[in-house]
Amino acid sequence: MLFLVRMDVRIPHDLPAVQVQDIKAREKAYSQALQHDGRWQSIWRVVGEYANYSIFNVSSNDELHQLLQGLPLFDYMDIHVTPLACHPSAIAS
Amino acid sequence: MLFLVRMDVRIPHDLPAVQVQDIKAREKAYSQALQHDGRWQSIWRVVGEYANYSIFNVSSNDELHQLLQGLPLFDYMDIHVTPLACHPSAIAS
Amino acid sequence: MLFLVRMDVRIPHDLPAVQVQDIKAREKAYSQALQHDGRWQSIWRVVGEYANYSIFNVSSNDELHQLLQGLPLFDYMDIHVTPLACHPSAIAS
Amino acid sequence: MLFLVRMDVRIPHDLPAVQVQDIKAREKAYSQALQHDGRWQSIWRVVGEYANYSIFNVSSNDELHQLLQGLPLFDYMDIHVTPLACHPSAIAS
Amino acid sequence: MLFLVRMDVRIPHDLPAVQVQDIKAREKAYSQALQHDGRWQSIWRVVGEYANYSIFNVSSNDELHQLLQGLPLFDYMDIHVTPLACHPSAIAS
Amino acid sequence: MLFLVRMDVRIPHDLPAVQVQDIKAREKAYSQALQHDGRWQSIWRVVGEYANYSIFNVSSNDELHQLLQGLPLFDYMDIHVTPLACHPSAIAS
Amino acid sequence: MLFLVRMDVRIPHDLPAVQVQDIKAREKAYSQALQHDGRWQSIWRVVGEYANYSIFNVSSNDELHQLLQGLPLFDYMDIHVTPLACHPSAIAS
Amino acid sequence: MLFLVRMDVRIPHDLPAVQVQDIKAREKAYSQALQHDGRWQSIWRVVGEYANYSIFNVSSNDELHQLLQGLPLFDYMDIHVTPLACHPSAIAS
Amino acid sequence: MLFLVRMDVRIPHDLPAVQVQDIKAREKAYSQALQHDGRWQSIWRVVGEYANYSIFNVSSNDELHQLLQGLPLFDYMDIHVTPLACHPSAIAS
Amino acid sequence: MLFLVRMDVRIPHDLPAVQVQDIKAREKAYSQALQHDGRWQSIWRVVGEYANYSIFNVSSNDELHQLLQGLPLFDYMDIHVTPLACHPSAIAS
Repeated sequence: MLFLVRMDVRIPHDLPAVQVQDIKAREKAYSQALQHDGRWQSIWRVVGEYANYSIFNVSSNDELHQLLQGLPLFDYMDIHVTPLACHPSAIAS
Repeated sequence: MLFLVRMDVRIPHDLPAVQVQDIKAREKAYSQALQHDGRWQSIWRVVGEYANYSIFNVSSNDELHQLLQGLPLFDYMDIHVTPLACHPSAIAS
Repeated sequence: MLFLVRMDVRIPHDLPAVQVQDIKAREKAYSQALQHDGRWQSIWRVVGEYANYSIFNVSSNDELHQLLQGLPLFDYMDIHVTPLACHPSAIAS
Repeated sequence: MLFLVRMDVRIPHDLPAVQVQDIKAREKAYSQALQHDGRWQSIWRVVGEYANYSIFNVSSNDELHQLLQGLPLFDYMDIHVTPLACHPSAIAS
Repeated sequence: MLFLVRMDVRIPHDLPAVQVQDIKAREKAYSQALQHDGRWQSIWRVVGEYANYSIFNVSSNDELHQLLQGLPLFDYMDIHVTPLACHPSAIAS
Repeated sequence: MLFLVRMDVRIPHDLPAVQVQDIKAREKAYSQALQHDGRWQSIWRVVGEYANYSIFNVSSNDELHQLLQGLPLFDYMDIHVTPLACHPSAIAS
Repeated sequence: MLFLVRMDVRIPHDLPAVQVQDIKAREKAYSQALQHDGRWQSIWRVVGEYANYSIFNVSSNDELHQLLQGLPLFDYMDIHVTPLACHPSAIAS
Repeated sequence: MLFLVRMDVRIPHDLPAVQVQDIKAREKAYSQALQHDGRWQSIWRVVGEYANYSIFNVSSNDELHQLLQGLPLFDYMDIHVTPLACHPSAIAS
Repeated sequence: MLFLVRMDVRIPHDLPAVQVQDIKAREKAYSQALQHDGRWQSIWRVVGEYANYSIFNVSSNDELHQLLQGLPLFDYMDIHVTPLACHPSAIAS
Repeated sequence: MLFLVRMDVRIPHDLPAVQVQDIKAREKAYSQALQHDGRWQSIWRVVGEYANYSIFNVSSNDELHQLLQGLPLFDYMDIHVTPLACHPSAIAS
């Protein structure tokens, strides 16, 4: 079951640099683990913005929320989720 | 080069049904031809809406505009394009 | 799996009254059948508006889209879907 | 009398962690007490967001405002209330 | 129980003038009957717009929706309802 | 001459509690004095929000601005003013 | 008493040209009469748009609404009114 | 003096095709004449939309409005104008 | 050449009061100097808001930007500029 | 391949002045280097705002993102990118 997710990162400018680097390092590891297990299917940078569009492939809304809530950057992001369905013109779903 | 494209279809309710069916049939054929040649990489339905999110893989802005402008439904859609870049956390681009 | 769905009905004023009555009658029957089988869990009128908020309980995004696309009023509604998850403070899910 | 309520939590990042934990613990207890007495009928997490949609069942606008204003997180939330009415297609109100 | 209601009238320009006059006459009578019985407590014109802000005093959300849905202009208005509560600084409620 | 005024209070969370209490006490006294002299005709709480809708009855735009600018909470509020006129369907202005 | 008024003209494209010309001619005469008597103090075109910003000088909200409602183009305009007050830095009011 | 202008074309679907072709042909000729005389400095298509961003180089607001109002498509476009100034980092103005 | 300018003042609440008073004093002097030389033609307070609408009369976009950028409050304001042209119904330009 | 980019600068008021001056100096040098090599084709100030509209000429989305992400002010700007294509009425591309 696919979802399009947009994440906009908004890190407060007065967060200590060390803390920011630590969060970003953990975010990258977390993201790559989920990409490897197939649930974070794609991630693209929005050109010019500290934001991404991603495709998640999960088996339920609850699973998706658990994944997103676990993001090390969760407290510093605006996230918007759009549920996707098969398109009748798609040549392969 | 990837782009996220959202298309919202808004067909006037007084367009003759025959004309609508013809446009939709040509739209489907047009979309599938582009999917087969790899430039319309993905297409998903937005749940509950007459709309889709798609990923296009083209070599220039002009090529993308030519593809979108050629859509049989082009006159009856609101289209919004977001340019995408590689994400540094992506495990494969 | 739960989804909150808002539907805003916008029937063109020049649609023949007979056709409108027919669509509305079929909409009501369709809605009640889905309520009886448990997938359209709740439906409430938004006070002062020709709109409703509904809770759907389905097993996938695709199932939800099929149900919504089948609505007799589908062509005359703006629909927005919000995926819901269990809340950690809920006393029963 | 039913109301749909959306709450978006926005805790300032420089609030001491101890204070945040205390507020959240009191929020949970407060919410569950109201759920047990039947006035906070449902609460769902919005997938991917620190937000919820809830259904309240109260006997007046004033009662609802008292309940919401009493939330331990009230100072750190954006709340929007939509009054609901019976829907003519509902099979049971 | 009080509600602030904003109504924006949008009559299609191709509605026959006779029909428009009839609807407006019935709207005025309907409004004045509700003002006399005390449920439509106040009505003001928004300066420069074909719109009004009104205060309704009703005993339930359902009663308010019934009143609003019965407006002869209901099909040609955008209506937005805001529930009101007593203000702690009010000298008389 | 009537005006509908909406005030949304946004007190910074790092303002000292003593200062906040003082401002609120002066705000209440200020509001009640204007209610007693008839210029602040009505004040209602927006359900679920730290906000109010009010009706002011003043003799000029300048008088209204002086009253609003004098609010002890003025620096911590978003205020929006809508000028009102007599409605032709009102049974008494 | 001054008000800033923005008017956006939206004439339906299927209104007969003769009718449009007549309305525009009456609009111009109406506007110039009010400019001559001093109540429509200024009128400027918004560059690139079929819209204007105007300053009205009237003695009440009701007077302003009567003037605006009497515009021959009133049915085909979106109008927004902003009440103005003296500015403390103005060298002459 | 430079201005950024965005034009969104919205041709009603029931305008006769012959009339549309005529307007578009005149629009193209009009645009190219202004490009040749240097006042319509640049014109680009917004990818995926029936819209353009243009740079105009004119000597006054009035001159710009006259040029835009003279567009054969003027009645069927939403136009938004942004005045531009020299940027202190520009290497050549 | 005329421009309508809206300025919304947003002074951070933790700016020292002495600094704020100094900025405001310089702002007033700066504004009055430009009013006296005729380029800041009008300034009005928006009722209920810490904002103004102003008319500037300058000979170029660059001149207007220099004037606005020089405002002592420039760093603490949201400014929006609308270019104005002569209106064909104006009795005097 | 052209892109229209809007950048809105939002420097927190509590950033040390020395740091701000340093960032701005590096921003100017960075911008001018890209202008000299032809990829930052144009830059204009938005009148009255701490913002610019720019035209970039790059060979890919990724190249554009690298350029923008490298801006010394990147952390303190809202950036929005619009991909541009050749316009069929342009006399020279």
